[in-house]
Amino acid sequence: MKVKVVSNILDVNDRIAEENRTLFDEKGVYVINIMSSPGAGKTSLVEKTIQTLGGRFKIAVIEGDIQDTYDAERVAKLGIPVVQINTGGACHIDGNMIREALPSFDLGGIDLLIAENVGNLVCPAEFKLGENAKIMILSTPEGADKPAKYPLMFQESSVMIINKTDLLPYVDFDMQKAKRDALAINRNLKIFEVSCKTSEGLENWYRWLSGEIESFRKR
Amino acid sequence: MKVKVVSNILDVNDRIAEENRTLFDEKGVYVINIMSSPGAGKTSLVEKTIQTLGGRFKIAVIEGDIQDTYDAERVAKLGIPVVQINTGGACHIDGNMIREALPSFDLGGIDLLIAENVGNLVCPAEFKLGENAKIMILSTPEGADKPAKYPLMFQESSVMIINKTDLLPYVDFDMQKAKRDALAINRNLKIFEVSCKTSEGLENWYRWLSGEIESFRKR
Repeated sequence: MKVKVVSNILDVNDRIAEENRTLFDEKGVYVINIMSSPGAGKTSLVEKTIQTLGGRFKIAVIEGDIQDTYDAERVAKLGIPVVQINTGGACHIDGNMIREALPSFDLGGIDLLIAENVGNLVCPAEFKLGENAKIMILSTPEGADKPAKYPLMFQESSVMIINKTDLLPYVDFDMQKAKRDALAINRNLKIFEVSCKTSEGLENWYRWLSGEIESFRKR
Repeated sequence: MKVKVVSNILDVNDRIAEENRTLFDEKGVYVINIMSSPGAGKTSLVEKTIQTLGGRFKIAVIEGDIQDTYDAERVAKLGIPVVQINTGGACHIDGNMIREALPSFDLGGIDLLIAENVGNLVCPAEFKLGENAKIMILSTPEGADKPAKYPLMFQESSVMIINKTDLLPYVDFDMQKAKRDALAINRNLKIFEVSCKTSEGLENWYRWLSGEIESFRKR
């Protein structure tokens, strides 16, 4: 019974996400959904991406959080449109929450919409938002066993960003195992090793994302 | 509609958890439920606790994971009874999963049962198992903003273990803010600062846990 209800919710969500996707296509908005465990560096990646690509693309952000507005305030300081979704306890954002947030934006004037999900390596992987790409972050202190333990997130994502490489000397993180196990789940996964603190490696992420947005525009 | 279904699931779970609790009381088993984000150090804490208190108390472990048995294998090496729960995708363990695991143990011969939950700072906080105490771990690389962002976990827990203090020189973690914000949510929260890597500070955790088990026996 429980499984039936959940699968029903997922079907409804898929339909709404598809409607969002159609609208984004019409308006020419490329959309990414950023997911990770709590504290892996989602907001830091959003900030760095805006600082670097904000001159080239018009960027807007949807911040998904259980109750607060801290991340939205961090991002709003960069002078771009931000809408906060408060899930009121729910462990992920979904297609309907995105749909409710959209009237707050002038979609025709946005090239890249970034949705930052609730910090959770499990549930957000199940809920499509209407995004072009799911981006997941694994931070080095979490350990290299995470792909094997939380496979759906790695399976559903187009990109894995391995963040906090600046901590590699101080944590037990087997980079080769993390990549090997993630690719065993999803052989098309693009992997970028970065430090959002020192900016090391982020140029590869910027290049990939810019390329995706350009290809999307030319479609 | 969705909220109604979820609240119904929670009611059923509360009833099962209470039945588990009654059984644990009869058999004299003190039960803790360990929760945290992925990679914060749950299994390391379980290992250290068994190594230190295993001579004094008879300990058994239930490992909750989405699909693998890695953590159960790590713990089984310490020569104590371990049962693996694989949730098959679900983001938490619940009262019914615990009930299903219990026939695998000789409960009369167990002083302390440790249930290690799925790595998730959101959903497990909602599901009682029949435990005496919920123990949550916050690791320093996750950041001090977590109590404010994931309040239910901090509200429901009896103990917050701040782990990975060995990384404090290398991460931006405001210890005073983390404690202050957590205590603002739950003023009865016991807080222990530890490093499961270096063992620093763990003696306070061992002392607290031993005291709880002794008080429970004398009730």
